[in-house]
Amino acid sequence: MYKNRMQQVLKNLNEAGYEQLLISDPRSIQYLTGLYVEPEERFLALLLKGGQGEASAVLFLNELFPAAENMPCDIVGFNDTDEPLDLVVEHCNQTKPLACDKTLRAGFLLPLMERQAAAGYVVDLTAVDTARAHKDEAEQEAMRAASKTNDAAMARFVELIHEGVTEVQVAAQLEDIYRELGAQGFSFNPIVSFGANAADPHHEPDSTVLKEGDVVLFDVGCRQNSYCADMTRTFFFRSVGEEQRKVYEIVRQANEAARALVKPGVLFSELDKAARQVIEEAGYGEFFTHRLGHQIGLDVHEPGDVSAVHHEPVEAGMIFSIEPGIYLPGRFGVRIEDLVLVTEEGCEVLNSYPRDLRVL
Amino acid sequence: MYKNRMQQVLKNLNEAGYEQLLISDPRSIQYLTGLYVEPEERFLALLLKGGQGEASAVLFLNELFPAAENMPCDIVGFNDTDEPLDLVVEHCNQTKPLACDKTLRAGFLLPLMERQAAAGYVVDLTAVDTARAHKDEAEQEAMRAASKTNDAAMARFVELIHEGVTEVQVAAQLEDIYRELGAQGFSFNPIVSFGANAADPHHEPDSTVLKEGDVVLFDVGCRQNSYCADMTRTFFFRSVGEEQRKVYEIVRQANEAARALVKPGVLFSELDKAARQVIEEAGYGEFFTHRLGHQIGLDVHEPGDVSAVHHEPVEAGMIFSIEPGIYLPGRFGVRIEDLVLVTEEGCEVLNSYPRDLRVL
Repeated sequence: MYKNRMQQVLKNLNEAGYEQLLISDPRSIQYLTGLYVEPEERFLALLLKGGQGEASAVLFLNELFPAAENMPCDIVGFNDTDEPLDLVVEHCNQTKPLACDKTLRAGFLLPLMERQAAAGYVVDLTAVDTARAHKDEAEQEAMRAASKTNDAAMARFVELIHEGVTEVQVAAQLEDIYRELGAQGFSFNPIVSFGANAADPHHEPDSTVLKEGDVVLFDVGCRQNSYCADMTRTFFFRSVGEEQRKVYEIVRQANEAARALVKPGVLFSELDKAARQVIEEAGYGEFFTHRLGHQIGLDVHEPGDVSAVHHEPVEAGMIFSIEPGIYLPGRFGVRIEDLVLVTEEGCEVLNSYPRDLRVL
Repeated sequence: MYKNRMQQVLKNLNEAGYEQLLISDPRSIQYLTGLYVEPEERFLALLLKGGQGEASAVLFLNELFPAAENMPCDIVGFNDTDEPLDLVVEHCNQTKPLACDKTLRAGFLLPLMERQAAAGYVVDLTAVDTARAHKDEAEQEAMRAASKTNDAAMARFVELIHEGVTEVQVAAQLEDIYRELGAQGFSFNPIVSFGANAADPHHEPDSTVLKEGDVVLFDVGCRQNSYCADMTRTFFFRSVGEEQRKVYEIVRQANEAARALVKPGVLFSELDKAARQVIEEAGYGEFFTHRLGHQIGLDVHEPGDVSAVHHEPVEAGMIFSIEPGIYLPGRFGVRIEDLVLVTEEGCEVLNSYPRDLRVL
């Protein structure tokens, strides 16, 4: 499986005209080798090389981090007092350009340039990302399982809602529930927003106390078997106002309109437009202030967003979020988010938690 | 305060021969502006410029992230469909070299190079890091408070230890305790290791069940008022073996030997050596497999480690960890870690949780 993935990445790389690629992103390294290491400030990279026929994969790994058995690549170990960039230079072909992934830090890239590791440097935006964007069967299964856990978790989360509870009190209980349900923990810091706080799409839970008439927004996900779930549901506490009801229905329809359109060949920008049009025609266009969604897998945000400026077609095997929202500053916000897996014919929605308006 | 910090960074930068600096690290941006944003894949940077007299600070901030009032810098906003790198080029001086911090991603740096944003590019390893390494009074106070919470938390953590409990069951309860004590949450994922698991310095909590004779190692820290605590204590469950006792005492002495030496002028490498010598002389040198410590502040690992290859003197205002360990593969491990603040005369130990051998 890992060898197949490496070959796909090298094929993509060769098509772009390059033969060597330095990968620093820990999740890309996990995708290609099975080994997940979070190196923080330490150096970690996988060098893939392959042109006509020959192919090699070398992982530069600090000895602090134990390798797995049967790694699908060579390992070059080093310790905290070694200079790993010298080791990378030894393994690079100095007569050819080096592609590197976009997360490689300037603190490693500029010294590699100084050492003349290669004949030029380019950012690889496609070889790894294109491979990772097309989830293979093992990945699809993992993504289904993570979203299934997220559905079950959401049913538990609404039980935490009661008069007088604060956002942080609710948020503090979510990770244990995910763990009980078999997940490793969060895929991202959960958003729990009450009332006007929901008008900030990136609100962090604070000590706001829940009161009647508030919206209750959960934007939450777990990581399970390394893969990420991500779903948003917006509820109402005790009562729902007329405009709240109206806004909720618009957002629900926007979510549905985009989902209904998903199949191979439709452009990401067309999905964004379909949802945005519903919201614009209802007169709330200026209050939908972000892109429609993002791809997701080993990372909660993967490249290739669902936005007005991404004019590529969606393809079978891709998984992304559909998350329209309306945010009325100082008042409330509504967002409804699901993950979809593109199939040959249309799409499979990975979340099954209901989207009907619900008063808690 | 923020203006003072910016002036210090620009002074450091000028001394290194540069006049413009692009800072991408979210915690460095918080240090210099007070605003903390975690942009994930989105662009975020602070451009500081200043040579003879004139000085400017511009923050490039996605409109998704709200700025605070009274920011100590200009704000250039953009949204997800804009190209922020074009905006950066407009603000750079193309006739002078640009320093960038080491975390700037290749995905932003290489396109800036293509756009000829500047006349050359260098990594800044000193201007920001040197400023951040010298904690001002507000920072020292925040670091004391975070470690005080960590002391109180450790006293609560040992109460979670009982026959049959697993590492993950213990780990899952720690964050709530930190929050109850006033912290925001973890400063890093906690390490809870039982028995032989403690022989891996970076062990992640798993379903290992505690049994008599195991060591119980907590390497834990909270983030409070944005600043990080970090402390390790190793306990014994029900009984302690002869070699366990011996190894514990060696590590305790190594920790003490290094702490006793801390004062302005001593080299980081001398501290590492002092601790390592204790362990080597006791015959366990090969089992102390990592550096002695790391600096800490807004980030849990800050540049300038306490290691055999760092031959700079420590200076007043610096805060770092002293964390010797002995790791016997397949058997057990012991680590004892404290944070110290360098004072004019010596050091202040920020942790007061006891280091005496304790059987739980």
